[in-house]
Amino acid sequence: MKFASSLVLLTEALRKLPGVGPKSAQRMAYHLMQHDREGASLLGHALLQAIEKIRHCARCNTFTESEVCETCLDPERDSRLLCVVETPADQLMIEQTMTYKGLYFILMGRLSPLDGIGPKDIHLDKLMQRAADGVVAEVVLATNFTNEGEATAHYISETLKTRGLKVTRLARGVPVGGELEYVDAGTIARAMLDRRAT
Amino acid sequence: MKFASSLVLLTEALRKLPGVGPKSAQRMAYHLMQHDREGASLLGHALLQAIEKIRHCARCNTFTESEVCETCLDPERDSRLLCVVETPADQLMIEQTMTYKGLYFILMGRLSPLDGIGPKDIHLDKLMQRAADGVVAEVVLATNFTNEGEATAHYISETLKTRGLKVTRLARGVPVGGELEYVDAGTIARAMLDRRAT
Repeated sequence: MKFASSLVLLTEALRKLPGVGPKSAQRMAYHLMQHDREGASLLGHALLQAIEKIRHCARCNTFTESEVCETCLDPERDSRLLCVVETPADQLMIEQTMTYKGLYFILMGRLSPLDGIGPKDIHLDKLMQRAADGVVAEVVLATNFTNEGEATAHYISETLKTRGLKVTRLARGVPVGGELEYVDAGTIARAMLDRRAT
Repeated sequence: MKFASSLVLLTEALRKLPGVGPKSAQRMAYHLMQHDREGASLLGHALLQAIEKIRHCARCNTFTESEVCETCLDPERDSRLLCVVETPADQLMIEQTMTYKGLYFILMGRLSPLDGIGPKDIHLDKLMQRAADGVVAEVVLATNFTNEGEATAHYISETLKTRGLKVTRLARGVPVGGELEYVDAGTIARAMLDRRAT
């Protein structure tokens, strides 16, 4: 007995999604083909469109459809402040606290030597160039307070300080071991206000 | 601050997958755009191809790319036996036991009045027509041994018996409450051999 080949291909392709194993992939494929072909079509087109349109902001490195993202172009923002975060989700959490009006740099990851993720993979060259534009006066490190996030912050801090930049870190209001994305906005607001020199 | 619109669309489309909530969808979207655009492209094309090609076998109702699936066309199979299962995954498990050489009918679901799934949704008209072809002598009910699967088996059994067909059920070698897809092949083999009249 053989399954239809396009169904086998779909099941295998669904395993490309993080956290999806063989059984889940099979269930997803059956579900889409049996109960939600419209959803499958929507997802198929959304994937192809995103690949085509999404690129990285030339300044802050976030996902965008233009050369430079809307946040970087916003004239209301304080361009002397640059906040470094791991992901766009972390950036969104900080925005929601309403305590920060500067600009951002998104690493799109964190240093993780065990997984082979080094300074190049988190775009540190781009960050150094960005921070050395002559306008940025303070870099606020807002990587996660996990071991890897702390190590990343330490590494960036050491590198930036040799270039004479003021570097601060979110205060330890954020619980140790916590990930920004899941912390309540009040805690992050407190940590933003208490940021300290490193 | 706004996310790129094609990224928002992708995140929403990923929520069409069963078991994927807003946070998972966001992580999946970031992961694909940051680390696996090739996988995203593969998945996008696989989805659109599957929608275009996959339909239901005219005889057994499984997913296929032709009018009638390979299993139904196999001349080696005993066309006097018809085994009724809930999903193609269940059919695959039975095939792996090597204890059954007849044909299949795949319901693509089970009766579930609470979810509004009635006889029409599990294609019972098609099953009745299929079972009444004059060749089928025995219908083996192999729906899951959950409450819904048992109720489905009971309903099908009552309907078929009024038409004078012999109806059997997999023996209770399968643990009560278990789902075929997750039971070991040995247990299913035992149950297939011990099938009993209902």
